[in-house]
Amino acid sequence: MTEPTNPQGRTAPSSASLGDEELALIDRYWQAANYLSVGQIYLLDNPLLREPLQPQHIKARLLGHWGTTPGLNFIYVHLNRLIKARDLDAIYICGPGHGGPGIVANTYLEGHYSEIYPDIAQDAEGMRRLFRQFSFPGGIPSHVAPETPGSIHEGGELGYAIVHAFGAVFDNPDLIAACVIGDGEAETGPLAASWQSNKFLSPVTDGAVLPILHLNGYKIANPTVLGRMRDDELEALFTGLGYEPFFVEGEAPEPMHRAMAETLDRAVARIKDIQAEARGGGMGFRRPRWPMIVLRSPKGWTGPKTVDGKRVEGFWRAHQVPVGNARTDEGHRKVLEDWMRSYRPETLFDEAGRLRPELAALAPTGRRRMSANPHANGGLLRRELRCPRWQDFGLPVTKPGAEVGEATRTLGRYLRDVIRLNAEARNFRIMGPDETASNRLDAVFEATDRVWIETIEPYDVGLAHEGRVMEVLSEHLCQGWLEGYLLTGRHGLFSCYEAFIHIVDSMFNQHAKWLKVSRELGWRRPISSLNYLLTSHVWRQDHNGFSHQDPGFIDLVANKKSDIVRVYLPPDANTLLWVADHCLKTYDRINVIVAGKQPQPQWLSAEEAGLHCEAGIGIWHWAGTDETGLEPDVVMACAGDVPTLETLAAVDLLKRAVPGLRIRVVNVVDLMTLQSNRDHPHGLSDAEFDSLFTRDKPVIFAYHGYPYLIHRLTYSRVNHANLHVRGFIEEGTTTTPFDMVVLNELDRFHLAIEAIDRVPGLVTRAAQAKQGFRDRLTAHKLYIREHGEDMPEIQGWKWPYETRRESGDRA
Amino acid sequence: MTEPTNPQGRTAPSSASLGDEELALIDRYWQAANYLSVGQIYLLDNPLLREPLQPQHIKARLLGHWGTTPGLNFIYVHLNRLIKARDLDAIYICGPGHGGPGIVANTYLEGHYSEIYPDIAQDAEGMRRLFRQFSFPGGIPSHVAPETPGSIHEGGELGYAIVHAFGAVFDNPDLIAACVIGDGEAETGPLAASWQSNKFLSPVTDGAVLPILHLNGYKIANPTVLGRMRDDELEALFTGLGYEPFFVEGEAPEPMHRAMAETLDRAVARIKDIQAEARGGGMGFRRPRWPMIVLRSPKGWTGPKTVDGKRVEGFWRAHQVPVGNARTDEGHRKVLEDWMRSYRPETLFDEAGRLRPELAALAPTGRRRMSANPHANGGLLRRELRCPRWQDFGLPVTKPGAEVGEATRTLGRYLRDVIRLNAEARNFRIMGPDETASNRLDAVFEATDRVWIETIEPYDVGLAHEGRVMEVLSEHLCQGWLEGYLLTGRHGLFSCYEAFIHIVDSMFNQHAKWLKVSRELGWRRPISSLNYLLTSHVWRQDHNGFSHQDPGFIDLVANKKSDIVRVYLPPDANTLLWVADHCLKTYDRINVIVAGKQPQPQWLSAEEAGLHCEAGIGIWHWAGTDETGLEPDVVMACAGDVPTLETLAAVDLLKRAVPGLRIRVVNVVDLMTLQSNRDHPHGLSDAEFDSLFTRDKPVIFAYHGYPYLIHRLTYSRVNHANLHVRGFIEEGTTTTPFDMVVLNELDRFHLAIEAIDRVPGLVTRAAQAKQGFRDRLTAHKLYIREHGEDMPEIQGWKWPYETRRESGDRA
Repeated sequence: MTEPTNPQGRTAPSSASLGDEELALIDRYWQAANYLSVGQIYLLDNPLLREPLQPQHIKARLLGHWGTTPGLNFIYVHLNRLIKARDLDAIYICGPGHGGPGIVANTYLEGHYSEIYPDIAQDAEGMRRLFRQFSFPGGIPSHVAPETPGSIHEGGELGYAIVHAFGAVFDNPDLIAACVIGDGEAETGPLAASWQSNKFLSPVTDGAVLPILHLNGYKIANPTVLGRMRDDELEALFTGLGYEPFFVEGEAPEPMHRAMAETLDRAVARIKDIQAEARGGGMGFRRPRWPMIVLRSPKGWTGPKTVDGKRVEGFWRAHQVPVGNARTDEGHRKVLEDWMRSYRPETLFDEAGRLRPELAALAPTGRRRMSANPHANGGLLRRELRCPRWQDFGLPVTKPGAEVGEATRTLGRYLRDVIRLNAEARNFRIMGPDETASNRLDAVFEATDRVWIETIEPYDVGLAHEGRVMEVLSEHLCQGWLEGYLLTGRHGLFSCYEAFIHIVDSMFNQHAKWLKVSRELGWRRPISSLNYLLTSHVWRQDHNGFSHQDPGFIDLVANKKSDIVRVYLPPDANTLLWVADHCLKTYDRINVIVAGKQPQPQWLSAEEAGLHCEAGIGIWHWAGTDETGLEPDVVMACAGDVPTLETLAAVDLLKRAVPGLRIRVVNVVDLMTLQSNRDHPHGLSDAEFDSLFTRDKPVIFAYHGYPYLIHRLTYSRVNHANLHVRGFIEEGTTTTPFDMVVLNELDRFHLAIEAIDRVPGLVTRAAQAKQGFRDRLTAHKLYIREHGEDMPEIQGWKWPYETRRESGDRA
Repeated sequence: MTEPTNPQGRTAPSSASLGDEELALIDRYWQAANYLSVGQIYLLDNPLLREPLQPQHIKARLLGHWGTTPGLNFIYVHLNRLIKARDLDAIYICGPGHGGPGIVANTYLEGHYSEIYPDIAQDAEGMRRLFRQFSFPGGIPSHVAPETPGSIHEGGELGYAIVHAFGAVFDNPDLIAACVIGDGEAETGPLAASWQSNKFLSPVTDGAVLPILHLNGYKIANPTVLGRMRDDELEALFTGLGYEPFFVEGEAPEPMHRAMAETLDRAVARIKDIQAEARGGGMGFRRPRWPMIVLRSPKGWTGPKTVDGKRVEGFWRAHQVPVGNARTDEGHRKVLEDWMRSYRPETLFDEAGRLRPELAALAPTGRRRMSANPHANGGLLRRELRCPRWQDFGLPVTKPGAEVGEATRTLGRYLRDVIRLNAEARNFRIMGPDETASNRLDAVFEATDRVWIETIEPYDVGLAHEGRVMEVLSEHLCQGWLEGYLLTGRHGLFSCYEAFIHIVDSMFNQHAKWLKVSRELGWRRPISSLNYLLTSHVWRQDHNGFSHQDPGFIDLVANKKSDIVRVYLPPDANTLLWVADHCLKTYDRINVIVAGKQPQPQWLSAEEAGLHCEAGIGIWHWAGTDETGLEPDVVMACAGDVPTLETLAAVDLLKRAVPGLRIRVVNVVDLMTLQSNRDHPHGLSDAEFDSLFTRDKPVIFAYHGYPYLIHRLTYSRVNHANLHVRGFIEEGTTTTPFDMVVLNELDRFHLAIEAIDRVPGLVTRAAQAKQGFRDRLTAHKLYIREHGEDMPEIQGWKWPYETRRESGDRA
């Protein structure tokens, strides 16, 4: 079939139909891109085929994916036409990222590739290098990657094309993200959910995403689910999801060009109409039905029909390298040569090997080229976030432990002012799975609303057609939107239940990889850090139980490159303020902040918090008893709000029960300080570490997460053998808050008992105290089974000492 | 509105409409379930409200979720009716798992709860305990959980209801899984993709899933996306997804009961018709359009309309505990008491506190009760998997390193025979994201096909309407289907690219949690282990590049309870056979097997492989030079196929360059042996560990994954300070296979250099050798940039020694 179809008969006005001459040029441009794509996959040399193809011209290892590539090239050239015709500000999100050769070919054809990589010039030698570097040691990856200009989307793991596209256009009202989704990717969960992003996109204040579902029917070795669905089912599906689908289907190039040009015209006209109408009417709009395109084209289009008698074009055998033995098998080599010559390179490139001027003229120029669109190198557009003085939001702490406060609620007030200060810039968003209020950041709703493009009922609370907070019950969407938003030069925060951040482990991995590679590219400008606030954490999921208890995300993060990741465990509200303020000002990093939302004793004034957090780790002299200049008998270390509370309560127990015991309290905010400075830029030197943790004294370390991580970070330290770590050991259920720490033996009594056990000679002296602690644990168990809540002595415990105010630092 | 609607006007014959008397009984049964649900959330005592409600009757901490519960109860009682009327074999998958009180209430009403937990008897005292235990220390979680009879689905993390339901009915042709999906859950990625599971469900050989999308409109603090979609959009969406949607919407109980009864009747009749038609016609069926139900009912249905003047019923304020201060606030207490009395408990329960007989008669009996359906306690139905002798598939290994073989290809032949041996039992499936052939398990296609219920074209390969292999480009679907399949008593394997298994990190977490709790419940019978084969691993993703390189799943696994998880790194084909055979025979575990698919030297014969793997770790005497009974100068340890290869190549280099150096080679298959036997049942004692790794000699450890894990597992060993681990340090790109190990300094040259550096006094003696190794590294870099493939000396390296054949063991 040849005409763009639209089963329900909807039409949109076409701005201009494609003339024969323009069609011929577009077809040649497409062939040039296809030629360059095949060349990248196969050739080491002889790039313009000016001599017969010889074995030594062909790569020894053939790596790359042809199947999706011609379709991607087809879309690209038609988008170019539209950009020029309508002066569009557009970027290309390439979901089928394995089609790297196609996107690279197009960025080369429009000249930007050579501007960034002058070695790959627009001439025969440049083309030779272009081909050779592809999937070659020291060269470029086979996928769309950070190295690919114009991309904000790595094409390795699949599923995130649409969320990245939406993230890119939020608050970019003039931007269009053309988003190609492969039919393989369309089977993934994150992609399936992300169609619903249209419920969060404002036609007034955001740009537009034009999804192009590119069905070529096959994965590696199977048909695809969407590829085999009938058009009427696809029509129903996308109508149900709130889109107006347009279909372009076929194989013969000429009618396909006409259909694609006309359909893209219509789709963009529809987008413009929707925006114009909504923007004329203020915020009173109804959710529009955005256009999307279903493009069915053969896999490996224009490639060999068959190889060795087996179906290739239009089948999964075209997925990767359709002709496998071109170097060693003469027959295969002939197939390859015939295939490449079918594009008639001599008509595409001039004597010098440069794209002929009548073709080069088809590409947009300057920043309108999709490879050079600054939105796809977001650091170029990034404006610093305006942050208020965090100290202005600090809780008053007259003495440690005297006041009770809620850390995240305090942070909420700071974030409210961040929103206010950047309201005009419209470059800050908070994402979360329906938990902004539940995580007690609700002060932000004094400054903004949740964005919601569906119907809003009179009794709804805090919903509006415009808002800085995005809530959807999908961590994938939250993460992906935020990634797209940051990659295009904006700022944000993802607030999430700690346990369920594992849902996006793999997305975190991919973003960390993107940052690592981007930082090595001079032309990629720094983007804002991806900031996680993990709250409703393991120790206060007593009410939701075991399924909600998992602190392991930190372990995943700690495996990544040290220049990319940071993990902060602020023990109270003022330290959380410092940490959040700090993280929002960083770039090219992933910052993980773990902080509880429950009322807890507050330890440090704003001033002290600043000093402590600057150091990242320090002795809390006011809490310990080792003030005499002597070495302590025992170091009580802690990282995390609940472990800090339990450690101080344990110190209180020990001070009463074992007078004269020299206790040092060390609190860790920045987890990476524990590593050696050889391994992490925030790491302590061995001398610094020893000055805090001693070289030979027992250290009882109460840690927020899995205890093994502390061992891993400190295994090379002199005193490591004396480091006894307690943390989450997978013991959890629905119980009381204090029982959660008891189950995992992280509570004050276990900590105090271990201190007694570990300090040489103390067990006998403190036998009675130890027994007393055991008795309290038994009493606790009995009490909670009777009353269902913690004993008053636990609930009501406060740090009882008047202590001099002095915060620790590294030394 | 009151009638079941079906916008496209489709109808199905109704088996029987609901009589007035039956309606009244059903309504009372529903009220009983609602009463018990509220009681669980609120009451400590006075369960039958036989005295006025007093503060001490009310729990101090109110935990639980009311909002979804009445709808879940409504569905439950109507399913009961249908089970009785049609003698259905049905289970209930409760996606909105926070509605735990409702499901527990129903299992209690039908008597099975008291059979399993005799303390919770069907009388007033039992009811008191039922109420008290809910979300109470020492009691049960607030969610549907392993403790809940009839459940195979933990209700904490959302997204997996449909995949679990499909997994349960695969190969269970008589089973119906009624699957309730909350409108919150429906926003998640995995759930959105899982509707497509109907493309993989055979109406002939599988059972049926009846999805019930339960829209009550709100999450914690927001409307839901699907809840606010119009019916015509939902109709289109589910039609597009291949379902026939039926709508039941309303609020007034009487018409809602009639509508639900009639609609369920129709839906089940449709299921039976589809099955009968398909089963009459053999395998020639076309994909059916399965029914599904959209149930719109108010959130917090039948609960307080308003509290403190704020809207509660039908709004998100009903999500958790609608009346917050019933213990301390008299007004709230009255709201609660009025609410509970509105169900008229005195008409529901008799003097003894037992459900009145006319109501009890509504529930199915015996194994037809959904709480007692054996499919939901799969161990009851589990038959042992028939496995062939793994030795029969072993590669001949005449001497170590002489032959080259492909580990996963070898395993494929074994799996082919597993499929054959269990063809009749139909209780084994292999899941994978389109990679069974790509991962070289393709021998299985000699015994079976990929199941595919869409159109099959004449040129398709290996697709059929029946098959043991399930391929879909969604790790979430693969994992979820397999979980459902295992939880209902069957067996399986999930084969996946190593890097992308992180996509299901969180599902792994939840399954591990499920197993941990299940094992503590005597009545839950063991189920088959969840077996992962991670292949296409980090060291051979040279062609796909950095985005495909991540070995961190092992780290996640290692955080879990030691009695649940196992990690195996077989170094060659025969060891892989032993490991896979072993894993398939285990139960209640999660086994992770990491094995490459590329041609590699083979080290151990089948017999040797058996001995080595039984021990899990051992000295390879034939490879080392420490045969004299003396301690070695250096231990070269390895875990993983590529690290083993590089270690042996390093030993070869050292033997030539430093004659007389006493080298011990230790190979680790079972990673958990490295832990102390105090921490893991497979762990070595300290004495055993020392006998392998010495107490003071340098150990150069080449490890497959992130090196920190080895430190974490061994930090308490005497010789830990001398353990130098090399592994993946996040250095990857598109390059050659050998360059991947070089980039991460895990290659033979780096290993040999480190051995020279670490053995006291060796550096001077071996300075020339060391320089030679450095030169080879430089030559390698130059070579690959020139040729794009590894040097012949690398590609062609083989273990060159005639060695006596002796495999190591622990001692």
